Amino acid sequence: MKFLSTSIVIGTIILSFSLEAAQWETLPEIAPEPKDNPTSKEKVELGKMLFFDPRFSSTGTVSCFSCHNVMEGGDDHRSVSIGVHGKKGGRNAPTVWNSAFHLSQFWDGRAATLEEQAKGPVVNPVEMGMNDLDGALKRLKSIPGYKVYFDNIFGEGESITVDNAAKAVAAYERTLITPNSPYDLYVKGDKKAMNEQQVRGMETFAAKGCAACHSGPAFNGVTKGVTSGVFMKFPTFADNEYVKKYKLIDDLGRYESTKKEADKHMWRVPTLRNVTYTAPYLHNGAVKTLEETVKVMAKSQLNMDLEEKEVEDIVAFLGALTGKFPEQIMPHLPPTPGDLLE
Amino acid sequence: MKFLSTSIVIGTIILSFSLEAAQWETLPEIAPEPKDNPTSKEKVELGKMLFFDPRFSSTGTVSCFSCHNVMEGGDDHRSVSIGVHGKKGGRNAPTVWNSAFHLSQFWDGRAATLEEQAKGPVVNPVEMGMNDLDGALKRLKSIPGYKVYFDNIFGEGESITVDNAAKAVAAYERTLITPNSPYDLYVKGDKKAMNEQQVRGMETFAAKGCAACHSGPAFNGVTKGVTSGVFMKFPTFADNEYVKKYKLIDDLGRYESTKKEADKHMWRVPTLRNVTYTAPYLHNGAVKTLEETVKVMAKSQLNMDLEEKEVEDIVAFLGALTGKFPEQIMPHLPPTPGDLLE
Repeated sequence: MKFLSTSIVIGTIILSFSLEAAQWETLPEIAPEPKDNPTSKEKVELGKMLFFDPRFSSTGTVSCFSCHNVMEGGDDHRSVSIGVHGKKGGRNAPTVWNSAFHLSQFWDGRAATLEEQAKGPVVNPVEMGMNDLDGALKRLKSIPGYKVYFDNIFGEGESITVDNAAKAVAAYERTLITPNSPYDLYVKGDKKAMNEQQVRGMETFAAKGCAACHSGPAFNGVTKGVTSGVFMKFPTFADNEYVKKYKLIDDLGRYESTKKEADKHMWRVPTLRNVTYTAPYLHNGAVKTLEETVKVMAKSQLNMDLEEKEVEDIVAFLGALTGKFPEQIMPHLPPTPGDLLE
Repeated sequence: MKFLSTSIVIGTIILSFSLEAAQWETLPEIAPEPKDNPTSKEKVELGKMLFFDPRFSSTGTVSCFSCHNVMEGGDDHRSVSIGVHGKKGGRNAPTVWNSAFHLSQFWDGRAATLEEQAKGPVVNPVEMGMNDLDGALKRLKSIPGYKVYFDNIFGEGESITVDNAAKAVAAYERTLITPNSPYDLYVKGDKKAMNEQQVRGMETFAAKGCAACHSGPAFNGVTKGVTSGVFMKFPTFADNEYVKKYKLIDDLGRYESTKKEADKHMWRVPTLRNVTYTAPYLHNGAVKTLEETVKVMAKSQLNMDLEEKEVEDIVAFLGALTGKFPEQIMPHLPPTPGDLLE
């Protein structure tokens, strides 16, 4: 179950894997929290309210939940998302489940933390479409019922701020984790938790090199000792039919935000947790099935044509990464003053 | 606390109130259910899944929940709703809370039952925008995870039908009731449940004639002996500044669906339960505050100018109609096949 020691250099990024570091890891039952935003029950509850509240979008119709449906796979089952006024985004919504285990957020990792990420979509014209964060803050302040929650958590006075709202949303997101998948149970010792095909798929997944990038508890390259976002070039091998068919090089990835040559086609390694819940796939949502995605990845990252049976086995293994979704009680949002959307 | 015996004839509708019928009534803790759709725990759970599932809209972005936000007042805090592609509807979203206590659905009562209502928005081009119910059914059938729920409730075989889906949604909606408001507790005998102003407002509400239409447990005219939807002409007195300012006669109401002259400007009497949660107000959502709405209604239905203090008292009383929103666990929706939205 261990994979070979390997070292991959792509652009300016070096990923090293030793036998030890590459062991199968299980998902913790609690996500790590930053020192300046400790998790509390009250903060999580407020964050959940804000996450589900569509009133911080220009039309009052789009919330975090709209594209990160935590009643499903934490995404929106669309190739690219739809925001206010029916506007389409340019990339596939990444799942919010287990996003706490990423060391950078968004497909291009342009936000380092969940707190920073939370502010982005609010002012994105094709997402929540507010003119600026001040506008969102004004909305928040004009719903009287929120004040008591902010005061309770952040202290009375100027408790309602953009940063505090983002902290609450991030705290909620840190509870969106799905431990105890069949894979986790298997690794912990329950050898019946995965079936034969899944075990075979797990071995193939490692043997073929998928785990070179998709390592660590969240299968996103974040393992012990890794302290910042893990990026890879995709496609690494661009001269194949899939790349053309699915237009995989049209989007320049991390370069679009950094404008650094070395960041062209660099992408954050996405988690594979609950991946059977997040079709369609890849940064542009162009690939509809997991089977096809496995083939695309093998060809474009490992320059490899997998056999049909290998693909099926890997897909079966990926199915074992669906964890236990925590039971969540719906938040109850404070009432709307009639002139909120003016 | 009883109001005068009165008889109102509007169009073809006759509403009679006797002293007995007009007594203050409390909201039952269980909603009535039709014989052909008995409520069960499993059916409610499936209905909740369907209610929250946006995959039965053309874009995959709009669910029942989008406009009937049960985390708020059961509506969408907008003057008129926004459906697929950012399209705007023509009327204000009525609250889904306590809709089980209506004897007709929609503002114009064009659906007699919740089951019938549930099918409407799916194929409304400015709401969920599916071409036809068959298209929605095809979507539903193509999500493999739903089958087991339908089979379990409706029997194996052709369990997935539009009618069964509508039955499940209606069964869920029958659980969306908010009993035990301060008003209910007061009427049941807890004289401290409402404050002095609310009690004064309650008396003013009855004395001025508001309760002539807004009677019964849901304050929607449905009282003992009433067996079909209760409609009233609005505005009854149309020659006032409010009617002009808020364009209250532009929409012909029930006439728009029946094309009967007698139905011009006839509207179903809406519930006043949780009305402080459902701004903005009236069929076109043109009136932003409850204070102004009370003035509009008094002038347009009773040809009466209320004193400021009377308005404040009535609004305080209406605040006592906010009930206990039941705790709800989020549903967990089955995964999406990648080609669902094609």
